[in-house]
Amino acid sequence: MTRGFDRSEYVDRVARAQGRMADAGLAALLLTTEPEVRYFTGFLTRFWESPTRPWFVVVPASGPPIAVIPSIGQALMARTWITDIRTWRAPDLADDGIGLLADTLNEVAATGAIGLPDGHETHLRLPWSDMQRLIGLTRGAITGDSGILRALRMVKSDAEIGKIGTICAIAARAFDRVPDIAQQGVPLDTIFRRFQMLGLQEGADWVPYLAGAADAGGYSDVISPASGAPLQAGDVLMLDTGMVWDGYFCDFDRNFSIGPPAPEVRSAHATLIDATEAAAEIARPGATAADVFHAMDRIVTGGAGGSDAGRLGHGLGMQLTEWPSLMAGDHTVLEPGMVLTLEPGIAVPGGTLVHEENIVITTGASRFLTPLANREIPVI
Amino acid sequence: MTRGFDRSEYVDRVARAQGRMADAGLAALLLTTEPEVRYFTGFLTRFWESPTRPWFVVVPASGPPIAVIPSIGQALMARTWITDIRTWRAPDLADDGIGLLADTLNEVAATGAIGLPDGHETHLRLPWSDMQRLIGLTRGAITGDSGILRALRMVKSDAEIGKIGTICAIAARAFDRVPDIAQQGVPLDTIFRRFQMLGLQEGADWVPYLAGAADAGGYSDVISPASGAPLQAGDVLMLDTGMVWDGYFCDFDRNFSIGPPAPEVRSAHATLIDATEAAAEIARPGATAADVFHAMDRIVTGGAGGSDAGRLGHGLGMQLTEWPSLMAGDHTVLEPGMVLTLEPGIAVPGGTLVHEENIVITTGASRFLTPLANREIPVI
Repeated sequence: MTRGFDRSEYVDRVARAQGRMADAGLAALLLTTEPEVRYFTGFLTRFWESPTRPWFVVVPASGPPIAVIPSIGQALMARTWITDIRTWRAPDLADDGIGLLADTLNEVAATGAIGLPDGHETHLRLPWSDMQRLIGLTRGAITGDSGILRALRMVKSDAEIGKIGTICAIAARAFDRVPDIAQQGVPLDTIFRRFQMLGLQEGADWVPYLAGAADAGGYSDVISPASGAPLQAGDVLMLDTGMVWDGYFCDFDRNFSIGPPAPEVRSAHATLIDATEAAAEIARPGATAADVFHAMDRIVTGGAGGSDAGRLGHGLGMQLTEWPSLMAGDHTVLEPGMVLTLEPGIAVPGGTLVHEENIVITTGASRFLTPLANREIPVI
Repeated sequence: MTRGFDRSEYVDRVARAQGRMADAGLAALLLTTEPEVRYFTGFLTRFWESPTRPWFVVVPASGPPIAVIPSIGQALMARTWITDIRTWRAPDLADDGIGLLADTLNEVAATGAIGLPDGHETHLRLPWSDMQRLIGLTRGAITGDSGILRALRMVKSDAEIGKIGTICAIAARAFDRVPDIAQQGVPLDTIFRRFQMLGLQEGADWVPYLAGAADAGGYSDVISPASGAPLQAGDVLMLDTGMVWDGYFCDFDRNFSIGPPAPEVRSAHATLIDATEAAAEIARPGATAADVFHAMDRIVTGGAGGSDAGRLGHGLGMQLTEWPSLMAGDHTVLEPGMVLTLEPGIAVPGGTLVHEENIVITTGASRFLTPLANREIPVI
């Protein structure tokens, strides 16, 4: 699998954005977050972990994107396809790029609206006071992006799907080796460290997300950090990981029974796989995110309408979680190229069990990017 | 080292915040980002990697903080010291917590100002359209936080410093083992994977940040992801990591010469250590961030005023980078309990070399949290 994308991928993304911008009457898009900047430029770095410096990309109504970035990023941005790179020496406590950004926006969007991603799954990555200053300095009106970023990023190219498939395969190999690292008596936090090492050994670039739990006959919480409690017979161990390869995520989990499972656990695991398969079967062009939710919810709750997790899966790509949400209120119509997680959960006497797989929507039946788990919960 | 904090730590944080809120005329603080929420609650999870759900904490003028969070976080938040936990089932495309948050703010701050962190190093972690809706629903005026979060978080408690020291020691042990994983011919991306594994083996909970470079006699860029190029004799290898233990970061680097270093590289490395020591010497209560910058800048550039990196170090704690910035424009006065990175860079014929150590300000001389590197660049 080759890293990066052909230049044509970016040219195509910009062309599709500009077509939608024309329809929406937007003179420019203003982007501030890591995936938004990377989507149009290919700028890939872990430096976003530092919240200090704002980074901006402006997509004009025509012509290539303009990067307005701290000078520390000049060299890396110059290795992308972007040629119009405007820098300032950040941090600058008096003006951290806002003046330069406003000049750029006033140049390309002196009249007309400037669209910011403003809906679900988004935020603005700059200080609130700087945002207010920017509004005062731009001649064009700052407004929402009419969902353009959502619409574009939600449908993946073949090259993007290839990258997601690559990291899914890497994580799957790590999951296959869990019996080597997780025996009775091993503390859960040690298992978390070892599992991250397995992912790196198998080829992940980094492991931005690992959650999980281990408790008797189920678990009560799937977002906690690991405790130091040792694995015990009768525990269900769940590991849920978002690993990255070339900037794209997987997001799936596996459950393991430590010693023989209780009948309720065995049965619940099989039901989760049934729900996953039912969802994968229905997940075709024309079906909605809600349809896929209901296919699972009917099986795991008898149609009660979900749980406190809020949804039973979501989009996946440059972020661990993306649009759409598999829930009753999301009527997004599925299209070929959408990548989804299917994430049903089910109540068991010990709490809950959650299962998760990743699929891609095609013109026909959906295709699993993860190797669908067996109905039988694996026993360690 | 014990995980977590005593309840008294949080009580003290809230009391100090409320004292400053009274001075600033704020009826409430509204917090939306991971470190802000964690600072007052102890809510620690990697689930923030998912951008889907907003999370809110409201600090009223008196009394304990109120968590306004997605129901998926209820169980974990209930294990903290927070008792007033208000939840909604997120995601909710019609109202993703904004109504519940506005009700809460109207209850505790019906009149008076609501302070949001709005300055350097901050952002608001909710969709722009939801922020506008919130402004319309709150009776109190939404304004900045008068730098309260900055002032509080910049000065660490002994318990916080202990956690930062713990992760510094873990990363230092990983750096000691770099000669085991980085020989001539090994591709840089393999070294990056192996180094992350070393950090996990040595006890890091996770490795949110790793950057670095390897090139002949220096490097040109310190924020790029690793290439697949194999290490060659004459390369300078630099690894810069932010690892986490119990929610606190280290942030330092090490340089290695692959084979005997060029005289310019040897000399430059020694100069970087000299600059680091000069900065550590001057970094005492009463000195400013700018003073510490100038102590290094005099040595590495002859007083030219810095480089495109923008600063020569920064605060460190719950984030990889925090206030203050070690640069000419930052006149923050140092106080005991501040944790700083000292990060001088110097030009060499092959590009640049950057060195980084972590210190804590005490009532007297600063104390290194990282084992200060030798003037002699290590040779592999």
